[in-house]
Amino acid sequence: MAVSEAKRGERVDSDDMTIAYVGGGSREWLPNLAQDLALADLDGTIRLYDVNPESAELNADFGNWVQDREKATAGWTYEATGDLDDALDGADVVLLSTQYDPMETFVHDLDITEEHGIYHAVGATIGPGGILRAMRTMPEYKRIAARIREQCPDAWVFNFTNPVHFVTRALYDEYPDINAVGLCHEVVHARQRLAELASEHLDVDAAREDISVNVKGINHFTWIDEAYCDGTDLWPLIEELADDEEGNRTFTPEDLEDESPFNDEWQVSWELFRRFGALPFAGDRHIVEYATWFLNGGKEGLNRWGVKRTGSDFRAKHWDPAESEQTTDVTAWMDGEEPFELEASGEAFIDILEALSGGERFVTNVNMPNRGQVEGVEHDAVVETNAVVSAGEVRPLAAGGFPRPVRSLVQGHVDTIETVVEAARDGDVDRAFEGFLIDPQVRTLQTEAAAELFADLVEAERDYLTDWNLDDADVIDDV
Amino acid sequence: MAVSEAKRGERVDSDDMTIAYVGGGSREWLPNLAQDLALADLDGTIRLYDVNPESAELNADFGNWVQDREKATAGWTYEATGDLDDALDGADVVLLSTQYDPMETFVHDLDITEEHGIYHAVGATIGPGGILRAMRTMPEYKRIAARIREQCPDAWVFNFTNPVHFVTRALYDEYPDINAVGLCHEVVHARQRLAELASEHLDVDAAREDISVNVKGINHFTWIDEAYCDGTDLWPLIEELADDEEGNRTFTPEDLEDESPFNDEWQVSWELFRRFGALPFAGDRHIVEYATWFLNGGKEGLNRWGVKRTGSDFRAKHWDPAESEQTTDVTAWMDGEEPFELEASGEAFIDILEALSGGERFVTNVNMPNRGQVEGVEHDAVVETNAVVSAGEVRPLAAGGFPRPVRSLVQGHVDTIETVVEAARDGDVDRAFEGFLIDPQVRTLQTEAAAELFADLVEAERDYLTDWNLDDADVIDDV
Amino acid sequence: MAVSEAKRGERVDSDDMTIAYVGGGSREWLPNLAQDLALADLDGTIRLYDVNPESAELNADFGNWVQDREKATAGWTYEATGDLDDALDGADVVLLSTQYDPMETFVHDLDITEEHGIYHAVGATIGPGGILRAMRTMPEYKRIAARIREQCPDAWVFNFTNPVHFVTRALYDEYPDINAVGLCHEVVHARQRLAELASEHLDVDAAREDISVNVKGINHFTWIDEAYCDGTDLWPLIEELADDEEGNRTFTPEDLEDESPFNDEWQVSWELFRRFGALPFAGDRHIVEYATWFLNGGKEGLNRWGVKRTGSDFRAKHWDPAESEQTTDVTAWMDGEEPFELEASGEAFIDILEALSGGERFVTNVNMPNRGQVEGVEHDAVVETNAVVSAGEVRPLAAGGFPRPVRSLVQGHVDTIETVVEAARDGDVDRAFEGFLIDPQVRTLQTEAAAELFADLVEAERDYLTDWNLDDADVIDDV
Amino acid sequence: MAVSEAKRGERVDSDDMTIAYVGGGSREWLPNLAQDLALADLDGTIRLYDVNPESAELNADFGNWVQDREKATAGWTYEATGDLDDALDGADVVLLSTQYDPMETFVHDLDITEEHGIYHAVGATIGPGGILRAMRTMPEYKRIAARIREQCPDAWVFNFTNPVHFVTRALYDEYPDINAVGLCHEVVHARQRLAELASEHLDVDAAREDISVNVKGINHFTWIDEAYCDGTDLWPLIEELADDEEGNRTFTPEDLEDESPFNDEWQVSWELFRRFGALPFAGDRHIVEYATWFLNGGKEGLNRWGVKRTGSDFRAKHWDPAESEQTTDVTAWMDGEEPFELEASGEAFIDILEALSGGERFVTNVNMPNRGQVEGVEHDAVVETNAVVSAGEVRPLAAGGFPRPVRSLVQGHVDTIETVVEAARDGDVDRAFEGFLIDPQVRTLQTEAAAELFADLVEAERDYLTDWNLDDADVIDDV
Repeated sequence: MAVSEAKRGERVDSDDMTIAYVGGGSREWLPNLAQDLALADLDGTIRLYDVNPESAELNADFGNWVQDREKATAGWTYEATGDLDDALDGADVVLLSTQYDPMETFVHDLDITEEHGIYHAVGATIGPGGILRAMRTMPEYKRIAARIREQCPDAWVFNFTNPVHFVTRALYDEYPDINAVGLCHEVVHARQRLAELASEHLDVDAAREDISVNVKGINHFTWIDEAYCDGTDLWPLIEELADDEEGNRTFTPEDLEDESPFNDEWQVSWELFRRFGALPFAGDRHIVEYATWFLNGGKEGLNRWGVKRTGSDFRAKHWDPAESEQTTDVTAWMDGEEPFELEASGEAFIDILEALSGGERFVTNVNMPNRGQVEGVEHDAVVETNAVVSAGEVRPLAAGGFPRPVRSLVQGHVDTIETVVEAARDGDVDRAFEGFLIDPQVRTLQTEAAAELFADLVEAERDYLTDWNLDDADVIDDV
Repeated sequence: MAVSEAKRGERVDSDDMTIAYVGGGSREWLPNLAQDLALADLDGTIRLYDVNPESAELNADFGNWVQDREKATAGWTYEATGDLDDALDGADVVLLSTQYDPMETFVHDLDITEEHGIYHAVGATIGPGGILRAMRTMPEYKRIAARIREQCPDAWVFNFTNPVHFVTRALYDEYPDINAVGLCHEVVHARQRLAELASEHLDVDAAREDISVNVKGINHFTWIDEAYCDGTDLWPLIEELADDEEGNRTFTPEDLEDESPFNDEWQVSWELFRRFGALPFAGDRHIVEYATWFLNGGKEGLNRWGVKRTGSDFRAKHWDPAESEQTTDVTAWMDGEEPFELEASGEAFIDILEALSGGERFVTNVNMPNRGQVEGVEHDAVVETNAVVSAGEVRPLAAGGFPRPVRSLVQGHVDTIETVVEAARDGDVDRAFEGFLIDPQVRTLQTEAAAELFADLVEAERDYLTDWNLDDADVIDDV
Repeated sequence: MAVSEAKRGERVDSDDMTIAYVGGGSREWLPNLAQDLALADLDGTIRLYDVNPESAELNADFGNWVQDREKATAGWTYEATGDLDDALDGADVVLLSTQYDPMETFVHDLDITEEHGIYHAVGATIGPGGILRAMRTMPEYKRIAARIREQCPDAWVFNFTNPVHFVTRALYDEYPDINAVGLCHEVVHARQRLAELASEHLDVDAAREDISVNVKGINHFTWIDEAYCDGTDLWPLIEELADDEEGNRTFTPEDLEDESPFNDEWQVSWELFRRFGALPFAGDRHIVEYATWFLNGGKEGLNRWGVKRTGSDFRAKHWDPAESEQTTDVTAWMDGEEPFELEASGEAFIDILEALSGGERFVTNVNMPNRGQVEGVEHDAVVETNAVVSAGEVRPLAAGGFPRPVRSLVQGHVDTIETVVEAARDGDVDRAFEGFLIDPQVRTLQTEAAAELFADLVEAERDYLTDWNLDDADVIDDV
Repeated sequence: MAVSEAKRGERVDSDDMTIAYVGGGSREWLPNLAQDLALADLDGTIRLYDVNPESAELNADFGNWVQDREKATAGWTYEATGDLDDALDGADVVLLSTQYDPMETFVHDLDITEEHGIYHAVGATIGPGGILRAMRTMPEYKRIAARIREQCPDAWVFNFTNPVHFVTRALYDEYPDINAVGLCHEVVHARQRLAELASEHLDVDAAREDISVNVKGINHFTWIDEAYCDGTDLWPLIEELADDEEGNRTFTPEDLEDESPFNDEWQVSWELFRRFGALPFAGDRHIVEYATWFLNGGKEGLNRWGVKRTGSDFRAKHWDPAESEQTTDVTAWMDGEEPFELEASGEAFIDILEALSGGERFVTNVNMPNRGQVEGVEHDAVVETNAVVSAGEVRPLAAGGFPRPVRSLVQGHVDTIETVVEAARDGDVDRAFEGFLIDPQVRTLQTEAAAELFADLVEAERDYLTDWNLDDADVIDDV
């Protein structure tokens, strides 16, 4: 039998992929990504969109310049555009990585919160600062989701913007059929750390890729209950380290004075493992914002666990391109002022792209709506688990549940997140405050003090909360 | 057609009811109950069991003496016994109301907890003190449940012993088919208060019985979302009062100096109503132990809301029969030293007994395992809602769910309760500590400080925790 | 403290109640209802709306005439209107009881289905005929629900129109905040039957009101697992009757020849009780449409259980006012041609109205969305359980779950109902057919035969399916 | 830091694997498996256990003989044992593949059922015959699970014995911590068929391995809602084929006369796809036992869809080693009477073993308890989905849910399975009959006819139902 016009569906084509990069003017990530892409087995077009068009154009120039290097194997063309719809039109893949609200908002998040007696470790994804950041960011991302629905409804959308759980959830809230995946490096770093511990204590030479874990939770508050190193069960080692010297080190403020806040000693993780039998699997600086016991002792109490605050001074410096160690001067490379060597960064995102376009199947951690992958946590909440990425598909693994106390902590944060997501639908500030009020950091204040903190934050960041009905908010009037 | 030996089931017979009263030596409640029973339309036998046989015998004498008063309408015979099985043998109804651990344990609950920085308002049903009390009490009640299974498996069991949720849950954990109902007066008092407010502000003359509410939650953390006064919707009034002077009164420590801790100003309730749109419906002194924001300001912070701590000094005095205002000297009555007038106390329990034995159907609040009556809270957790009591039946009403933030608070406490109940199965102290650690009062401490508090409490109350494997507990060794 | 303008909510006022009766031209029910209302302790206005205005006017005349009888205690005024909005405007209570599609559609439901090999017992609420009836009726009721939302959003709406589960569910699907309650007499009749059995076999003189049961299920497929007669447990008797002569009678077609189809022998109920341990609690003629084993033997097979088909000939006769025994000639009464005696019919609806307006609390069976009252059956499906009716409130009781096999049967029918309800949202005929196809009666056909039956029914009733997109239906084209 | 005795867990070691094969005397599968294993990159010991020791010894001889062939790459040693505990002692992997009840029982399953009017297509895994087979098999497998708990509690257990859902569920019911996985070839064959269709209709040359599907359901009643061929979405093709000639072929009994019952025309699958929008993904002969419309037309009705019954005559022949085409005479090979060429069979099980011991990650369909992988189907029921197999781990993918009508069909069968599993706990025959009675094949009978069929089957197979309390069964007495 012959079907004259047999139909076949669209696929993400490794020979002609269109990527829209929203936030494509980035000074941090694009310089690495462009090199990774250049060394991949992929061809296509990359459209860089940014509210700052010059940055996008500079990055496009750099991307094309990298493609001209001798070692480049891929066939990419970079374009810059100031029109979001143009960037998205028919895209196969969309990357979301922006930071539209300025550095000062982050300083407010941390400093105003501290003035009211809460000592944020990072303040970037939960707690008072994280919730305000979510309130600033979600409306913008709902607008982007609406454009994706129009311009490229079937595209695979990868969100790197924090707070990843809030933002990814907002994308689905606007456009439920979106193929959106939140990505984050914390689990990858933890696998790296576990590889080092296995190499140190067992007779193996393990790399990050050798470590497989059953990860579950919400972004920045992920846990594992199984870990293997190339098939060897690591749980006996983990139990030993938790009770041994490794898991019982203490620190003074002096010890950490010259350390980077990104340094991770895992002492919070070991403590929580001892208490609950599951191991947190993200940086301790993030974990303490969710398992908030560790914030109750101020600077000294936090430092005791090896965690150094990511303070507003650090953030301010980090933000300033002239000061930051994380931004890259691509002009210097293109102008030959700095030597350039085309090198892969080890970024897992390239593995995802290759798997998605038909390359080798890849298992990695993703943030997606809960459709059964995490037991005991609300359906449709954005949870983080492993997923199998294969040609055209990203399919989460069924990771099972938690010990009850951990489940309680996780679902508690989901309740805050979902409340604020619901509030964002019609800009209901009082409803957002309900989510704020049940956050465990905020629950160390009295209700009126919580309202004052909230009102002060809203006041300071008013310019970036224009989608919220500030005028009708009792919580602000009352204060 | 004639069925020669047609079968009919047993019923609770109003003419021949057997009540077993565990804790029947009570100086507080029995004197009232005996009068209520004497005035009811019920006959039968009441067996008073107590670990202190003299108290039981004195109460039996008193009960029989009351029956001899001229106004007595019922036909009760009182017996005292020191054998639990004898008391329970074939009983129709079992009352549980005991306090076996001595006053000093309650002093520890409050004072040791305060030394570690947590300012309990009552400390009797949740938080560090309440959890320790549950650890002392649950094993005893599981033993009672096991005896009920043997001696009177179909009896209706009414538990008045605190913490009502922990204790009632423990009865079901031991004997899942038990017909146990936890009872508590807080909701009744709140209906009384609402009747007074309605009478004051609307053109009605309302009594407690005129107020019907849709109540739900867990004991001492109950909420309403509907209230009627003889069919009139009270919600508009409640909304007005919350925003008006009534709902916005503040207090100083001086204001409360001469007040009883039982005095209830409802300022916590109005504040929570303003924040979440549902109204707490138990005494504020209990509510603050669950909605813990109000404990964060110490004495002054708590007093500001009109709540006066039920401190250990008050408890000590209250405990001492010579000092307490709540105990009754029945000997003085029987000896004619005090004038006695047979009077009903208005106790709802009599209405329950009459309805259960075929009298008028009665609707009241009960604590029973969740079989659907509260949405969004764990199945089988002991929840409090209204129930219809009719001949042979106690059937909870489907009360619906909560606003999400309230649901989150309630389920969080259920997670603590269920964790400690699970721990009690094999006396696992470390597991009990997991439940302790996630309590929101404890979450204001660091984890190690929480462990020290827990270990100090266990140490002080060691004699009353003999069912727990204290020797194998890491949490105690580590401290 | 004085609140100057204290607010009180609306109530259903027993002295000034406004009832809108949609289908108020009824020849069957209104004549009884008008007498019941006249003898109640209620006053107000009744607006009769009907697509046939003359019928409504005649009934209004009759209602007012009844009010003039000497024995009438209530103070009602009847009005007739041909405008639905006028009828509903500000109503306290809305009654829904209509049959707009003509008798011939019911004849089609039964006869076409029989031609395709399915022997309906009633065909009125489930199975091929019942589903088609739902498809004809639901769109009309969604329009009524939309008018209620505009004209009297807080009214209590009582739906008597079949299929009660489909229709009540459609009201909520259109207007989720509607206060709608589906009512049906089957459970009341079953309580009557149980009272008779108790009187016959036990030493009691029981009336319907003495029987209390824990009823649950969906309308016409309700079950009990507890039954009391004035507090006496009837379960031992039920177990005995099921195994005895009473529960094991068989019938021939000849036995039933002169019987009314409404006659109920309970042999199906006893058989299902023996198999599953729970007792069906609606007429056997309805039960067999849901527990479809009994339809597999045609006329003889059905008669064997004492069930006589409610055939199209019976329906046709019943429909014709000149022939029906159920319609009442009110003119003959008003003209003095027939003697009239004002008498209560014993209709439970009056008890509901009185309780709702502040009279004695009343427990009765209702059909409402599942908010926990039935365990293991889908949330929001319309289920039937007992409810407490009190001033301004109708609150279902938490009835618990089923033995697993019964749960499976009930949820299977819910799946059909919910599928057709979803299909009705946009008139999707193919989706409705999916619900039709999984009905257990239809599952005795091959898929193509099922499609033919469906298409034939749709074709015959096309004039009454104008809200459905018949033109786009593959299932009809294919046949 | 040095940890002196760092611990590492056990792993499945590709260089020293111990496999226990329960049913190792198999004439069908072992000859293939031995060749596959010989060509793998694995070494170790295989212990063949069988109730027929001679068969096991012959297979051991054959296995060792194969290892001596020149092309053999692996290093396996085969042993035969008649002691189950010896076979299991410390095993890494256990294979379960037995058929202890003799051929005549299967003849009864089919023929007695047919005598009572139900025309089984296979009768091997559901419906009357399948349920009886489950009743015969489950007790035996519960005994094996108990031995595994003692001898090798951490082993990976692969069950190939039908009915796979019942049997795998029984293993977990006995030993909840077992690492058991049910395996079946139906999904693999369907992927093969889909590869052929893709090759035929699209411009590709696809093999089974190129097809990836999102499969979910219960064994033999699996469905897909996504299919890719090397990343190309196949859904447009599937939709076209369903409506085209391919999906609309009909067959007469004559057409199928010479066909094998294993021949699969997919006409049932296309029909169900047209009705419900999801594609069944197992052989049509199995699907019709679950989607029972197709059994309602007897032989002709079934043949019309291209399905030929696997009748008792076929089974009898197939069973007889002298007649069967599926058994292999290994003696002929060893004796040189038949030429032998060592060849891989393409069996997926080898890929699983290699992945489990640290080889390349492998995705395949497995039957495991539902821990979230299938939405809307009961927790802990054994469901079939894809899983990722990697070193030491088998982790199911979160496959999402079904269209509602399909979910209803699947959960209905789960209700039967779970009821019979519960009944097996204490050999409760009446409870097993409850599961039997709600099977949709049985629902085409009257209840008494169903009881007769059940009793006749039990009577005929009494010798293989010795774990059931036949004497206390009302359903058998009554008949």
